[in-house]
Amino acid sequence: MTDRAKEIPGEILPPARLMLTPGPSCVEPRVYRAMAAPIVGHMDPWFTQMMDDVQYLLRLAFQTKNRITYPISASGSGGIEAAVMNALDAGDECIVCVNGAFSERMAIIAERIPSVKVIRVEAPYGRTVDPQDVLRAGKGRKIKFVGLAHGETSSGIVQRIEDYRKVADELGALLIVDTVATLAGVPLNVDEQRIDICFSGSQKAISAPPGMAPITVNARVEEVMHARKEPVWSWYFDMTSAMNYWGHERLYHHTPPITLIYAMREALRAVMEETLEGRWERHARNQQALIAGLEAMGLELFVKNPADRLVTVTAINIPAGIEDGRVRRQLLDEFSIEIAGGFGPIKGKIWRVGLMGYSAQENNVLLFLAGLEKTLSDQGFRLPAGAGVAAALKSYQHASQTAAVGARK
Amino acid sequence: MTDRAKEIPGEILPPARLMLTPGPSCVEPRVYRAMAAPIVGHMDPWFTQMMDDVQYLLRLAFQTKNRITYPISASGSGGIEAAVMNALDAGDECIVCVNGAFSERMAIIAERIPSVKVIRVEAPYGRTVDPQDVLRAGKGRKIKFVGLAHGETSSGIVQRIEDYRKVADELGALLIVDTVATLAGVPLNVDEQRIDICFSGSQKAISAPPGMAPITVNARVEEVMHARKEPVWSWYFDMTSAMNYWGHERLYHHTPPITLIYAMREALRAVMEETLEGRWERHARNQQALIAGLEAMGLELFVKNPADRLVTVTAINIPAGIEDGRVRRQLLDEFSIEIAGGFGPIKGKIWRVGLMGYSAQENNVLLFLAGLEKTLSDQGFRLPAGAGVAAALKSYQHASQTAAVGARK
Repeated sequence: MTDRAKEIPGEILPPARLMLTPGPSCVEPRVYRAMAAPIVGHMDPWFTQMMDDVQYLLRLAFQTKNRITYPISASGSGGIEAAVMNALDAGDECIVCVNGAFSERMAIIAERIPSVKVIRVEAPYGRTVDPQDVLRAGKGRKIKFVGLAHGETSSGIVQRIEDYRKVADELGALLIVDTVATLAGVPLNVDEQRIDICFSGSQKAISAPPGMAPITVNARVEEVMHARKEPVWSWYFDMTSAMNYWGHERLYHHTPPITLIYAMREALRAVMEETLEGRWERHARNQQALIAGLEAMGLELFVKNPADRLVTVTAINIPAGIEDGRVRRQLLDEFSIEIAGGFGPIKGKIWRVGLMGYSAQENNVLLFLAGLEKTLSDQGFRLPAGAGVAAALKSYQHASQTAAVGARK
Repeated sequence: MTDRAKEIPGEILPPARLMLTPGPSCVEPRVYRAMAAPIVGHMDPWFTQMMDDVQYLLRLAFQTKNRITYPISASGSGGIEAAVMNALDAGDECIVCVNGAFSERMAIIAERIPSVKVIRVEAPYGRTVDPQDVLRAGKGRKIKFVGLAHGETSSGIVQRIEDYRKVADELGALLIVDTVATLAGVPLNVDEQRIDICFSGSQKAISAPPGMAPITVNARVEEVMHARKEPVWSWYFDMTSAMNYWGHERLYHHTPPITLIYAMREALRAVMEETLEGRWERHARNQQALIAGLEAMGLELFVKNPADRLVTVTAINIPAGIEDGRVRRQLLDEFSIEIAGGFGPIKGKIWRVGLMGYSAQENNVLLFLAGLEKTLSDQGFRLPAGAGVAAALKSYQHASQTAAVGARK
């Protein structure tokens, strides 16, 4: 061994974290097993079937018949870039509804393209963008697309896709929807809601590891893609070329992350075995219990209107006098639970708790509330002992009674 | 279960392939183990150490002290895009040495950027680009970079980096080198060879799964990045922002593929335990045995000049009367061995055999030669029975004797 060899770091031994962040969520155990399957070549005839399976399962998850439906070889932000770059052509104008960091990212990505004009229609963090503002901003202009985040992970807010679809129709614009935080966790139906481009991420309610961005685009977008004046500025994110690989032509484009495609397939199998409806219900039930617990502990939610709350990410106002970083650090050190803080204008003002995919479980909610009670008490916040866990248990009991009544009907 | 649930595809059961393609290579078994480690959040303090480890190991592999050294969250082609987009600014001119599909990809990516001018200096597949042609093409012009593929996987050719460095110096240009097919398999020293931007892929001689593109850029490029007139056209591939996450600021950029970072770390640990020198020697030794075997079977290599042959990918001329697809299909069906064909102008004319990373083993060479003998015989090619395997065994014996003599000296 050389001297250099002595400095090689040791084997990987991660702490067992309970990830209640707004992504990544805990990975389904069966997905780890699938990733241990030996890789094959990306042009192997056997792999063709894997690709077909993933596309088939993604169509079920998105609820679409779109031909172009596949996972992009990039994180969710790569999905934003692919959506924006394939929709826009030289000289185009678009509207992005900005109400948080991820919807703002869509605007930032579009603004980087020379010759493109981006109109931002804004709402503060924790509020939905007014569709009428979108209409006013686009009136009399040729708008290529209206873009928005279905669920804005940075603030825990959800927007009604229908409202923006209506406005986009009035403007003659395409509708791009970021469902990174919602796909497989919150009701979504790409075909019925007539979303032209819809993308997501692998690491949230799907519960695969991060690294892939599922996307689907409809026939109207395919026409737009074929009628381009300039090629897509990014070769990597050019969906026409990528689809030559994912489509039945199977022409080589780039080498995809085989292991993550195995992971996507397995995670989507788990989604479909549970059924979408079952999964949506599970996510809603767990958030209801979480909210009941938080409110019983005397905490307030950042998003006031219950209808605007994103089911997968709950934003909590940090009580006066309590320090953000200390609480999160104690939760991590003492309970190995990770939650997230806010960023941008609400840094230090909110916590964000993700209950997504495999992480959205009763045991996790109860443990988190117990850990939070201990942590907040230690940090000097006065709260009724045991109230959070008790309220959550009651909420679960109520939910199971309601379900039983529903089943009897 | 709904009707839909009945249509869920079954569990993943891939065939055990011996991947002797020009990538991906077989994954190191210990890397699968590392990927089974539970994921943590990308902002977890424990993960910070993982990131540092990967950067440290990548600096050893690239042989560089460059601050900006990290794995991009994309396949090797994403590495090309990052290199090109971060080096170029609006109105720039660059030279790309094109002698195969992957070096051509660098040109194609640069050509997509509006306002950028790309000069292609070409050589036919299987030949190196003449550095004097590069000099002539750039003379009197302001050239931002000269780009080339160190190893061109599409034809199995290697180029002498020094020759292009010299020309780039004369032109006052940056040097971008694609080492996707060479890093950790073929001698490379980024600092000594003064490569300004060097990128690679995870799935070749490093033997991790595909999905990450290690990259390193020096201080000169950092200056170029800071002096930009226009932002990098791709937000995803903007290295300045990405380095705010990978650097000590640890500012969130995008969620990286945690599992693949575990994989990179473990694969690089294996590289360093073997030592770079040991790994280069192993790759060379196995290719020598492969070539000895192929020539004894009466086959010819596509690259005539031995000094131009890429150690990791061996291109074989398909003998007259033998059909490309049939041979590859039989190798796959009967021996579960995958090799690749050619593409572009040499489609159907060559086979490409990759011996990279974990795939570069004596047992694999012997098995491949045996399987190829059977397959070629079945397809009507006349060859001396057993000659390939015998010649390879002799080559290995000779190599171990030479090594023993070397050790005694």
